[in-house]
Amino acid sequence: MTVTGPKGFRAAGVAAGIKDSGALDLALIVNDGPEQAAAGVFTRNVIKAAPVLWSQEVLRHRRLRAVVLNSGGANAATGPGGFQDTHATAEKVAKVLDTGAIEIAVCSTGLIGERLPMHAVLSGVDTAAEALAVTPEAGLAAATSIMTTDTKPKQSFKSHIAGWGIGGMAKGAGMLAPNLATMLSVITTDAVLEPDALDAALRAAARVTFDRLDVDGGTSTNDTVLLLSSGASGISPGLDDFTELLTAVALDLVYQLRADSEGATKDVDIVVHGAASEQDAINVGRTVAEDNLVKTALFGSDPNWGRIAMALGRAQAEIDPDTLSITINGVTLFANGTTAADRAQADLSGRVIEIVIDLGIGAGTATIYTTDLSHGYVEENSAYSS
Amino acid sequence: MTVTGPKGFRAAGVAAGIKDSGALDLALIVNDGPEQAAAGVFTRNVIKAAPVLWSQEVLRHRRLRAVVLNSGGANAATGPGGFQDTHATAEKVAKVLDTGAIEIAVCSTGLIGERLPMHAVLSGVDTAAEALAVTPEAGLAAATSIMTTDTKPKQSFKSHIAGWGIGGMAKGAGMLAPNLATMLSVITTDAVLEPDALDAALRAAARVTFDRLDVDGGTSTNDTVLLLSSGASGISPGLDDFTELLTAVALDLVYQLRADSEGATKDVDIVVHGAASEQDAINVGRTVAEDNLVKTALFGSDPNWGRIAMALGRAQAEIDPDTLSITINGVTLFANGTTAADRAQADLSGRVIEIVIDLGIGAGTATIYTTDLSHGYVEENSAYSS
Repeated sequence: MTVTGPKGFRAAGVAAGIKDSGALDLALIVNDGPEQAAAGVFTRNVIKAAPVLWSQEVLRHRRLRAVVLNSGGANAATGPGGFQDTHATAEKVAKVLDTGAIEIAVCSTGLIGERLPMHAVLSGVDTAAEALAVTPEAGLAAATSIMTTDTKPKQSFKSHIAGWGIGGMAKGAGMLAPNLATMLSVITTDAVLEPDALDAALRAAARVTFDRLDVDGGTSTNDTVLLLSSGASGISPGLDDFTELLTAVALDLVYQLRADSEGATKDVDIVVHGAASEQDAINVGRTVAEDNLVKTALFGSDPNWGRIAMALGRAQAEIDPDTLSITINGVTLFANGTTAADRAQADLSGRVIEIVIDLGIGAGTATIYTTDLSHGYVEENSAYSS
Repeated sequence: MTVTGPKGFRAAGVAAGIKDSGALDLALIVNDGPEQAAAGVFTRNVIKAAPVLWSQEVLRHRRLRAVVLNSGGANAATGPGGFQDTHATAEKVAKVLDTGAIEIAVCSTGLIGERLPMHAVLSGVDTAAEALAVTPEAGLAAATSIMTTDTKPKQSFKSHIAGWGIGGMAKGAGMLAPNLATMLSVITTDAVLEPDALDAALRAAARVTFDRLDVDGGTSTNDTVLLLSSGASGISPGLDDFTELLTAVALDLVYQLRADSEGATKDVDIVVHGAASEQDAINVGRTVAEDNLVKTALFGSDPNWGRIAMALGRAQAEIDPDTLSITINGVTLFANGTTAADRAQADLSGRVIEIVIDLGIGAGTATIYTTDLSHGYVEENSAYSS
């Protein structure tokens, strides 16, 4: 199940003709209420796509009736004309739902710098509105419609024993980076929550999930995560309970995004302990995660802790070589300033790799989710524009 | 010509047996004076190799009689034992030259985390001392001895019309990054300069050359650039004249390092204008230079300015999308917040690519020297430990 798992939501995914391939490329998610509370987090890139500027603006009202999403074009760096295209798309959705454009968020993904084929987008909204359904199939079609270089749709659903649930869909594949990836995600819930609580829960969950996925350091112009509450379960959970389940759904989506990211052959957790602060731990984890020499060594299944030491030594963090230790897949290879075990003892032949870096300084900790750097990544990103 | 170009220097490069391959792996550069003034700049990585810790210490005295360099092992993350190895190497060189170890700098490059085969190193010093010569061949042997994954030695020599000159050698290939690359470089001059002037000139030159080469964001544990003055020309140049020629030699070495860096198929200059400050310009240039999506697009000869816009949008710098322009190989593709020309007009099929980013805010400017990201890079760095 997916965004249609929680009660009160309909979804659709259609082929609007935005993509030349004829694949699904337009999704619509509608919140039928009774509540329409919403929250969102967006890219921190200074260059923001038109749909991001639009959706940030409409979310000031903390209510969303629907989200329309397209693949096949990012509508980024398209100037005032691109913004008008986003506005027209929201107006069209508002019209078919008999509401105001201010209740419609818009998300786009694809190539930067190209205008969208608006005739296809607008007629696609009509087609999608007719296809809206509460079924898992409708949710799957929506999740499929936002794929770019993704090879499979990403969906998650988790229910709470008290009788409410959270569903989500996401797309990623490339440009997966700190502070959200090239990522679009829509998460739905039928729990009853005020907009303030939704916002707090989303920020807390994103901080330790979407924000800690770092495949290639890229931060997209279009990153958006939206959380919509229908309140249709009639149940008001505690904020801690809700945040916990939301974090689990987000982490599930993050794992799927990582596993399907461009060219990835390894799922790598970089766990940093003993940092002077959580921010130090994040900085160390990200610097290692983004280091191409570390990433290519992981692709080669090479437990090259020297490259890890080199990478973390340039992180913005308090580091003491003499208290540092590096453990790969359970084998401590570096400790007390020198070699602790023969690197051959660490087996990296499997897909899952855990690198534990203990800075031995304080109590700060963080985990960064990343991948290796493979021929597949170079091939996908050099042979095709995206 | 190379480090033996300026008067007063002898050099040697020998096969000491540190590398299993039997290739040249130990170099010795001796300053026969009459002056022995010296300056150095070193990696800013917190994890510093033993030879870096040693050479930083001896350079407090601002005098060097000789530099001994080895490839085949970085002697980094090797603990107190590794430091003793460096010390023993310096003592050995001091003994054969009949001076004190405090006048001997040591540089190492190769795999991190392995102790050096000290018997080979120490007997190699004897062999090198016997081979010392002022010939270009001796300089070439020294430059060849420090190669790791380099495919060719890097050398430069430039003379001033007044009768003094500057020679240099360098190695690089991988881990080429801001704040020096995995780079060792020894630069010699027969100009007469006080240590303070040498230090000022080296810092000024390195700031706009070695520090602006950024191939993969890696900052080595071993980066070292040493500048030695023999004063043998008897001529005291002005500091500006000297810095200018030194910068030219350093830039020549940087171009060679870039052209021979692992897997590079493109030589890319990223020129940033119109930044609020020089530091902003550097930050923008480096962020773009390190972005894997930009680098793979360049490998594919794809003028994907959208990825450049995405990358610079996450740089730590003041950026206004509406005043920004991006020009690739002479064609302005993005300006005034939107597309300025069809990307197909920019021809990236050649090896040399110039990306000009005008932020349109202030007078800050900087050029970063980088490469593309190719299959060759992934292959070299995944198939072999280094």
